Amino acid sequence: MAKVNQTILLKMQSPVALIPQLAGHLIASGGKRLRPMLTLATSKMCGYEGDRHAELAACVEFIHSATLLHDDVVDESDLRRGLETANAVWGNKASVLVGDFLFSRSFELMVADGSLEVLAILSNASSVIAEGEVLQLTTANDMDTTEDSYMQVIVAKTAALFAASCEISAVITKGSKTEQAALKSYGKNLGIVFQLIDDVLDFSAEQEKLGKSVGDDFREGKVTLPIVLASRRGSEEERSFWRRTIEDLDQTDADLKTAIDLMNKHGALKDSIERARHYGAIAKDALAIFPDDDYRKALTGIVDFCINRAY
Amino acid sequence: MAKVNQTILLKMQSPVALIPQLAGHLIASGGKRLRPMLTLATSKMCGYEGDRHAELAACVEFIHSATLLHDDVVDESDLRRGLETANAVWGNKASVLVGDFLFSRSFELMVADGSLEVLAILSNASSVIAEGEVLQLTTANDMDTTEDSYMQVIVAKTAALFAASCEISAVITKGSKTEQAALKSYGKNLGIVFQLIDDVLDFSAEQEKLGKSVGDDFREGKVTLPIVLASRRGSEEERSFWRRTIEDLDQTDADLKTAIDLMNKHGALKDSIERARHYGAIAKDALAIFPDDDYRKALTGIVDFCINRAY
Repeated sequence: MAKVNQTILLKMQSPVALIPQLAGHLIASGGKRLRPMLTLATSKMCGYEGDRHAELAACVEFIHSATLLHDDVVDESDLRRGLETANAVWGNKASVLVGDFLFSRSFELMVADGSLEVLAILSNASSVIAEGEVLQLTTANDMDTTEDSYMQVIVAKTAALFAASCEISAVITKGSKTEQAALKSYGKNLGIVFQLIDDVLDFSAEQEKLGKSVGDDFREGKVTLPIVLASRRGSEEERSFWRRTIEDLDQTDADLKTAIDLMNKHGALKDSIERARHYGAIAKDALAIFPDDDYRKALTGIVDFCINRAY
Repeated sequence: MAKVNQTILLKMQSPVALIPQLAGHLIASGGKRLRPMLTLATSKMCGYEGDRHAELAACVEFIHSATLLHDDVVDESDLRRGLETANAVWGNKASVLVGDFLFSRSFELMVADGSLEVLAILSNASSVIAEGEVLQLTTANDMDTTEDSYMQVIVAKTAALFAASCEISAVITKGSKTEQAALKSYGKNLGIVFQLIDDVLDFSAEQEKLGKSVGDDFREGKVTLPIVLASRRGSEEERSFWRRTIEDLDQTDADLKTAIDLMNKHGALKDSIERARHYGAIAKDALAIFPDDDYRKALTGIVDFCINRAY
């Protein structure tokens, strides 16, 4: 990971000073580096001995950072990981453009690596992510969103990059098609777990301990799984509460507590975590074809870690 | 060009309906398709007989379209080519995300084409463009901007993609290094001409005939060459006019006319066009190594066409 961090710092440099300033603010602000870690761990599990994995892990983190910068603009967020967002400090314009820079730089790094297969996987993931983000935009504030359409959004906007960050390890280690598919499946399902728990955490007091505010999704009218489940299982009166707060964004300070109470009444948070366990089990089983070494143990451990964030 | 338009329409499709809607609004709204035309004409001049050039020309237009979508968000523009901008119709969020989609899709198309050299040229151009846009952001509203720093911005934000759209033709026709450098130089200098004239047109009544409003750059406080020249050549009193209107953005309705009067008084518009002629001559000379066929004539004709837009 030290090598990855070094590459990230080196490659985000530019004679235009605002670029490393703004990118550094985001990248140095204590992200978990989960995606690049997946590239490193999966390639090591596949017996990789070279050093391309660190450069490609940096590419993955650049794509992720670019989407975060654009996400914060789209969501009009002021806080990320307890710190002011880049758009809050430097404005939306700079965030959009530095996001574009990181995205382009990521492709430059992949081109330097030289694998068209890796480029195919990550360019496809990038367009799927963008599609997912647009889809999320069109389903926001829509209480007709089903669990299926919610899943469609998170598979695209989150799981696609997790999947790609693992799948590229099969390319650089010249793994079999079976191994490549297994790594992709592990990454995809882990990504689903991660996003499900993230969406649960938005309604959890645990969130505050992480320096994040509770109820951000609720205030924006994002229809995440806890809301889908609570509303579907609720009474007609409760559904009119959800329509008022999520569709009309007509909210009072007391509404967030009511929302969480309704979720607990209908087991919506608990069952969202149960859904995450289901995808977590698939992720772990996908790894079963690999030798049960320390890297595989670490990768199954990440699944549990993601689920346990909810508690 | 029919093939290019077909490819563009085909490849901007997505199951997420907003994507082709928004992208189609921009792409179908009567752009000049100058950059893809350059890819076609330069590859034909180099004797190209295949059909990769049409797909790659579509890539170039996708990158350009992505930057336009983000530009309009950054500039808070409501009008482009006399029509409402995508951000005015669908909002900034959708424009940012559909821009990301087009950008990713462009890389997917390049990967499908399969040339790492083309990928290197266009990924580098993309990050240079983003750097140029950020640089422009940091020089906006700054009357200390010199002609050199203005040139640095337009070379990056505009000329880099013109250069790349020509340079890739040398790759697909397996041209010599000399030919590749010549095409890149032609594209770069033509791009400079294009942007210089664009910046002149912002202060010209000709602009209104094209369905664009006059003085957009002025109202935003963009320090383009006509402003640099007029202010440098002006009196201390005139310079305080420029500081008030451009740095403080403290403008009245009468200020645009005053600005244009000052530009005419100091020959700032006329001399900006003269500067464009200089770069246009370099562009034409860069083509001198190629056979003087109809394609080369068309390419030198584009230089004159760009300059003549100013009248």
